[in-house]
Amino acid sequence: MTSATLPPRKVGVLGCTGSVGQRFILLLASHPSFTLTAIGASPRSAGHPYAFKVSWKQTSPIPASAAALIIKTCEPANFADCDIVFSGLDADVAGPIETSFLEAGLTVFSNSKNHRRDPITPLMVPLVNTHHFGILDHQRKQRKGTMVTNANCSTTGLVVPLKALIDKFGPLEAVTVTTLQAISGGGYPGVPSFDVLDNVVPYIGGEEEKIEWETGKILAELNEARDEFVHTEIKVSAQCNRVPVIDGHTACVSVKFAKQPAPSVEEIKQAFREFKCEAQELGAPSAPKQAIIVRDEPDRPQPRLDRESEGGYAVVVGRIREDPVLDVKFVGLSHNTVIGAAGSSILNAEVGVLKGLI
Amino acid sequence: MTSATLPPRKVGVLGCTGSVGQRFILLLASHPSFTLTAIGASPRSAGHPYAFKVSWKQTSPIPASAAALIIKTCEPANFADCDIVFSGLDADVAGPIETSFLEAGLTVFSNSKNHRRDPITPLMVPLVNTHHFGILDHQRKQRKGTMVTNANCSTTGLVVPLKALIDKFGPLEAVTVTTLQAISGGGYPGVPSFDVLDNVVPYIGGEEEKIEWETGKILAELNEARDEFVHTEIKVSAQCNRVPVIDGHTACVSVKFAKQPAPSVEEIKQAFREFKCEAQELGAPSAPKQAIIVRDEPDRPQPRLDRESEGGYAVVVGRIREDPVLDVKFVGLSHNTVIGAAGSSILNAEVGVLKGLI
Amino acid sequence: MTSATLPPRKVGVLGCTGSVGQRFILLLASHPSFTLTAIGASPRSAGHPYAFKVSWKQTSPIPASAAALIIKTCEPANFADCDIVFSGLDADVAGPIETSFLEAGLTVFSNSKNHRRDPITPLMVPLVNTHHFGILDHQRKQRKGTMVTNANCSTTGLVVPLKALIDKFGPLEAVTVTTLQAISGGGYPGVPSFDVLDNVVPYIGGEEEKIEWETGKILAELNEARDEFVHTEIKVSAQCNRVPVIDGHTACVSVKFAKQPAPSVEEIKQAFREFKCEAQELGAPSAPKQAIIVRDEPDRPQPRLDRESEGGYAVVVGRIREDPVLDVKFVGLSHNTVIGAAGSSILNAEVGVLKGLI
Amino acid sequence: MTSATLPPRKVGVLGCTGSVGQRFILLLASHPSFTLTAIGASPRSAGHPYAFKVSWKQTSPIPASAAALIIKTCEPANFADCDIVFSGLDADVAGPIETSFLEAGLTVFSNSKNHRRDPITPLMVPLVNTHHFGILDHQRKQRKGTMVTNANCSTTGLVVPLKALIDKFGPLEAVTVTTLQAISGGGYPGVPSFDVLDNVVPYIGGEEEKIEWETGKILAELNEARDEFVHTEIKVSAQCNRVPVIDGHTACVSVKFAKQPAPSVEEIKQAFREFKCEAQELGAPSAPKQAIIVRDEPDRPQPRLDRESEGGYAVVVGRIREDPVLDVKFVGLSHNTVIGAAGSSILNAEVGVLKGLI
Repeated sequence: MTSATLPPRKVGVLGCTGSVGQRFILLLASHPSFTLTAIGASPRSAGHPYAFKVSWKQTSPIPASAAALIIKTCEPANFADCDIVFSGLDADVAGPIETSFLEAGLTVFSNSKNHRRDPITPLMVPLVNTHHFGILDHQRKQRKGTMVTNANCSTTGLVVPLKALIDKFGPLEAVTVTTLQAISGGGYPGVPSFDVLDNVVPYIGGEEEKIEWETGKILAELNEARDEFVHTEIKVSAQCNRVPVIDGHTACVSVKFAKQPAPSVEEIKQAFREFKCEAQELGAPSAPKQAIIVRDEPDRPQPRLDRESEGGYAVVVGRIREDPVLDVKFVGLSHNTVIGAAGSSILNAEVGVLKGLI
Repeated sequence: MTSATLPPRKVGVLGCTGSVGQRFILLLASHPSFTLTAIGASPRSAGHPYAFKVSWKQTSPIPASAAALIIKTCEPANFADCDIVFSGLDADVAGPIETSFLEAGLTVFSNSKNHRRDPITPLMVPLVNTHHFGILDHQRKQRKGTMVTNANCSTTGLVVPLKALIDKFGPLEAVTVTTLQAISGGGYPGVPSFDVLDNVVPYIGGEEEKIEWETGKILAELNEARDEFVHTEIKVSAQCNRVPVIDGHTACVSVKFAKQPAPSVEEIKQAFREFKCEAQELGAPSAPKQAIIVRDEPDRPQPRLDRESEGGYAVVVGRIREDPVLDVKFVGLSHNTVIGAAGSSILNAEVGVLKGLI
Repeated sequence: MTSATLPPRKVGVLGCTGSVGQRFILLLASHPSFTLTAIGASPRSAGHPYAFKVSWKQTSPIPASAAALIIKTCEPANFADCDIVFSGLDADVAGPIETSFLEAGLTVFSNSKNHRRDPITPLMVPLVNTHHFGILDHQRKQRKGTMVTNANCSTTGLVVPLKALIDKFGPLEAVTVTTLQAISGGGYPGVPSFDVLDNVVPYIGGEEEKIEWETGKILAELNEARDEFVHTEIKVSAQCNRVPVIDGHTACVSVKFAKQPAPSVEEIKQAFREFKCEAQELGAPSAPKQAIIVRDEPDRPQPRLDRESEGGYAVVVGRIREDPVLDVKFVGLSHNTVIGAAGSSILNAEVGVLKGLI
Repeated sequence: MTSATLPPRKVGVLGCTGSVGQRFILLLASHPSFTLTAIGASPRSAGHPYAFKVSWKQTSPIPASAAALIIKTCEPANFADCDIVFSGLDADVAGPIETSFLEAGLTVFSNSKNHRRDPITPLMVPLVNTHHFGILDHQRKQRKGTMVTNANCSTTGLVVPLKALIDKFGPLEAVTVTTLQAISGGGYPGVPSFDVLDNVVPYIGGEEEKIEWETGKILAELNEARDEFVHTEIKVSAQCNRVPVIDGHTACVSVKFAKQPAPSVEEIKQAFREFKCEAQELGAPSAPKQAIIVRDEPDRPQPRLDRESEGGYAVVVGRIREDPVLDVKFVGLSHNTVIGAAGSSILNAEVGVLKGLI
C-alpha cells in the first residue's frame, strides 16, 4: 500500500513558535496529505506573520508555506476548519487550552503530558499501540471532541523495542533503563549551556516517573468493551540524564523475560528486525520502512550518526548482548523531536485517518 | 593522626608524558612526603628535560620541580634509587616494562590493566581494600619486586559506595551500572572530537568486562593464609558510554541486597556518610576527610561541579532512591584521573608506607 | 538553463575512506550526471567492499550505490575509464599519486594543497573563478593530463563575498579575517576532543598562510595569452581558530576598498544579493540558486543553523556594518566540506563539462 | 612590598547569588584583608542563609564563611558598616540601586555597565589605569559616596596588552579585535545550550560598542586639574563571538602603531614581558606576579589551559607575529570572571586602599 491513499486533511498547530511546534511546521511543510491552515501561539505573537515572531532554530529554513501564515490565538474558533489540531503547547498552558478545543468538538493530537493519564485518552506511540484508537468510540460518547496524546520523548524510544520483544517472546518481568537525553527535549531556551558544557546532569524533573508509568499504559490491552486500558504489569526502573547532544535520546536498556530460559541474542536481533507495526501495514506515509534498525557495529547507535535514520521515524538498536543481572541488554536510540514528539503525533494522525476515524 | 607521620620516599614515574603521567607529576609536585627523582618515557623523549618533551594539557602549569628533570628510558637501572615507581604506562607497553622492574626488585604501583588479573597482585582501590596489602609477604616470596595495581577508572568510583553498603548491610546480590565517562579516560590524543561533539558513544572497548570482573576481586576477602584472594560472588552488569566531559565519570547504579528487606534510603545515606577506610584511619595525607560525600540536591552529583571535591579523592553520591526493579538506585561520581588513576596509586602507596611495607 | 543539459560522466574518487572522500561519496550518490565507477584508498583497504573498510561518520547512511564498490589502490590503471577523478587524498600522500594520474593522462580535481601553487594549475572556487579554466589549453600542452585544484576550505568562504565586492566596487586594498573553523576540517580522527571541549585553539598549522596567499591567486586575472595567472594585489591578514563546531567555518571579515568613499552598507548588501557566477549561468546542477545569502537578523549566520543553506553550496553573510578601522565588516559562513571541499570539486567539474572541456 | 601591608576592610557584595556575585564570594573567602560582612540580593532571597538561596555553579564548594550569611535586601542601610561595597548586580537593576548607595555615602566598586560612561567615575582595569583614582577627590566634591566601575570583560583582556604597547612604543593608531567569548560572560541561565552546542554565535548585544568606546576611556589621561578624563584617540573595531567555552575570553588582536616603522615582534614580546603596573608596585595581594604572560608555543593561549594563570589575574598572550594589513597581530586570553569582572573590582579596591583613598 502506498501513501497515495492517505486522504487530504486540513491541520492546525498550537504552540507553533516553540521547539515542538517548529518541528511540526517543518514536518508538515513536506507532508503529502496534511495541509497546514492555522497556527496558534500566545497573544503577544498573534496577528503577525509566522516568520516575524518565531525564533527559528531548525537547520532547514522556515518553509515558505508557513512563513507568511498569520499566527492566531489558541482559541477553538480560530481552528474551526481544521480536521486535526496538533498541539505542541508547553505543559504549563496546554491543559485548559486543549480542553477548550475538546469541548468545541475538535480533534486534538497532543504532545503535552497534561492528558496522558486520562483513562479514556490513548497514550499512543505510533509504532506500538495504534490499536488503542479503538477507544475513540467510547471517548466520543463521553465528550464532544477527540483527543489522542503521544508519549514522553524518552518513553517512546524505549517502548518500541519492548513491544517487539513482547510480541515475539511474551511478557517482560522487568526493565531497567538509563537514558542520555538530548537538550532539544528541554525546549528553548531550555537547558542553560552552563549546565551541559563539560558536564552532564543526572536529573530531569518528572522524567523517570513518566517512563516508569507511561510504559504500562502504552503496552496496555484495550478491554473487550473497548472502553478501558488494562495496563501491563511490568516493573520499570529509569535513570535519566541530560547530555550535551542536540537531538537524539540514547537509552541503555536491560530486560528480564517472564518466560525462562530467555531468548538468545540472535533471536532478539531477529525479532527486532522483523518487527512490523500497523502504521506500516496501513501505508501511513510517515511510517518508517524499517521500524527498528539493528546495527551490528560494536559502537552504535550514536545520536549524531543515527538519529536521522528513516527521517527520524525509526528506532535504532545496537549492542544487544547478555546481561549478567537481568537477561539481555541493548542500546536504543530515537529522535526525540521526530518519533519522540511532533513526528509521533503526525504518524498517529495518519493512522487515525487511514482507519477512517478522523 | 596527621600526615606529618608519613616518612619521606623517593619516587619515580613511568610514562610521565601521557595523561596519567601528567597527573602523577602534578599530584606529586605538591606531595608532602614523596619526592620525584626519576621520570621515564619512550626513547624518543629520553635525554631531554621534561618541559621540552611533554605536551602539557593540565590546567595548572608544569610544576617547576618537574620541568627540568631529564627524562630517562623506562629501564630499571634508571630507577634503582626509587623507593616507589608509579607506572602510568599505556597497556600496550606496560606489560614487559613493569615485569622488568619487578624482576629488578623494584616496587611498582601500576595504573595499567596488564597485571590486574595476576592472582598474587592486589587490585587495590585505596578507599576500599588496602587490607589486600596482606598478600605482599606471599608475593615477595614468589618474586624479587613488589607490585600493586589500581583498578580501572570506572570500577573505582563504583566499588567505593558498594563497599560502604556491604560493610553496613552485608552482601549484595546484584549490581547494574551505566556509566557516562569523561574523555580524559581515553588519554591523549584519545577520543576524536568528531566522536563526542553533539554525540555520545555507547561503547568503550573492554570497559564493561573490566567493571564486571574487577569488582569481584576488589571486594574479595584475603584468605587466612594470606596468599589468595577469595573473590566476592556478586552479579555485576555494566553499560559504558563516552560523553563529552573533560574529567569525572558518572555512574548510574542500582543494587540488590542479599538480605531482605533492603535497608531504607535514609539508612543508606547514613551508611555512605559514615563510611571510613583504612587510608583515613592511618592518616594518609592524600586521603579525603570524607570518603563518600552525599549530596541532597535533586540534580547532583555533576562532573563539572563535583569532581574536584576533596581534591578529586572523594566519591560523590546523590539521588539515592528506591528502585522498582532491584532495591535502591543512586548516582556516583568520581574523578577518573585522580581517585580513578594517578591519585589512587599515590594513596595506595601512602598506605603501604604507613603500614611499614614499603 | 536546467541541469538536464549536463552530459553524463564516469567519475572516480581517490581517498574514498577519509573525511573529504566520504563527502564525495555522499554528494555523488545523488548526482544527476556523474556516475561513480571507481574508488581508491590505501593498499590495506583495497580489495574490499567500501562498506567494510570505511569508518563512516556521516549523518546519512552509506549510499547503496557505493557500499558494495570494491576499493582499489590509487593507481592510474584502476581509474582508466574515469572521465574525472576526484581526489580527497591527504596532503601527505596526494602529491606523487596525483602526479602519477596526470602523467597517465587522467583528469584530476584535487582537494589537496600539493598542486595549488603550481603556476599552470587553476586554484578554483566554483562561485568565483571558473574563467581560470581558460588555462587548460595551455596546461594540456605542458603535460598529458589535466588538473584543477580547489582552495583551502577557509579561503573558499572568504573569496566568494570578496569577489562580489570587487565585481561591483572595484579592487580591495586590504582584508582582515579571523576564522572560527569547524573540526571536520581536520579530518578523522583529526582534532582530539581534549583540545576543543571547553576550549578553542587559536592556531591551525599553515592555514593563515594559505588564506593570505590563495586569495591572490583565486582572484587573479588570466592573462591574454591564457597561460599565466596575474595575481591580485591585495593585502590579506588571517587569524585562524579551531572551535568545537562539527561543520561550517565562520569568518569575521573586514575590508578596505581601493576607491573612496567606500560603498554604503546597503550597497554592499545589494551587491551580495545580486552576485551571480558562471556556474549558475551555465546551469550547473550543484550550483546554488543564490550564491550569497544575506541574513538580516543581528545574530546570523551561525554554523549549525545556516551551513546547510542551498545544500551547503552557498555562502551565508550577515552583520554587514561599518568598520571604524577599515571600511566595512561582516560575518561569512560556508560549509567547509561541501563548498569548501568535495562540493567545490564537483561543481568545478560540472562547469568544466558544461564548457566542453572535460 | 608584600601583601601584609594591606589594611583590613569590611566589604559587602550586591547581587551575591548571580554569576559575578558567586565569583566575588569565592575570591573574598580566601582574601587576606577583606572580610565579607554583608551580602545582598533580591527581596525573594533576602532573609535566608546564602547556601539556601544560591544556585551555586562554581567548581569549588560554597565557602563556609559565606554559607550561613543571611542575605539582605540591596538597601544602603543594610551595608552601612561596609568600607567597600562590591556590586555584581545585573545591568537591569544596578542603576538605581548603585545610585542609592552613592547617595548614602557608601563606596561602590561596580561591575555593571550603568555608570561606566559617567564622566567623573573611573572606568578602571587594575592592571592599566589605577592612576584614574586621581579623580576621586573631585568626585567626592560632587556627591556623597564614591564609585569606581570596572570594564566590560572583553575590553579588559584587550586593554592590558594595548597599555603595555603604548607605554613602550607610544600611541596606537588602530586596533582590530575579534573575540571568542566564554558563556560565563552571559550569566546564568544565560546562553541557551541550543545556541552554542555545535555552534558559535557571531553576536553579543552591545559588546562591540562597549569595547570600541571603553578602550578610549580606560587609556585616557587624567587632566591636570584631575577632574576630567581625556579619552585616547584610537580607532578600535571589534567583532564579538560567543563560543562554547566555560571561562576565558580569547581575543585575536591586530594593532597599528602611530610611529613607524613599527617595533619588531621581539621588541613587542619584550614589552609584554616587562610590563609592570601600579597594583604590582604597591604590593596589592591579588596582583599577578606577571601581569602579561607571553607563551611561545605556536598554539597558545588556549582558554581551558591558560585561564587559571596567576589565579585568573594575568593576561596571557601568544602568537605575536607581523600583520600584513596593520603592523602586528597576537592572541590574548583573560579570565572573564576574574580579571574581567569580580577579580578586577577586588584588585581595584586593593589599590584604592593601598593608596589611602578608601
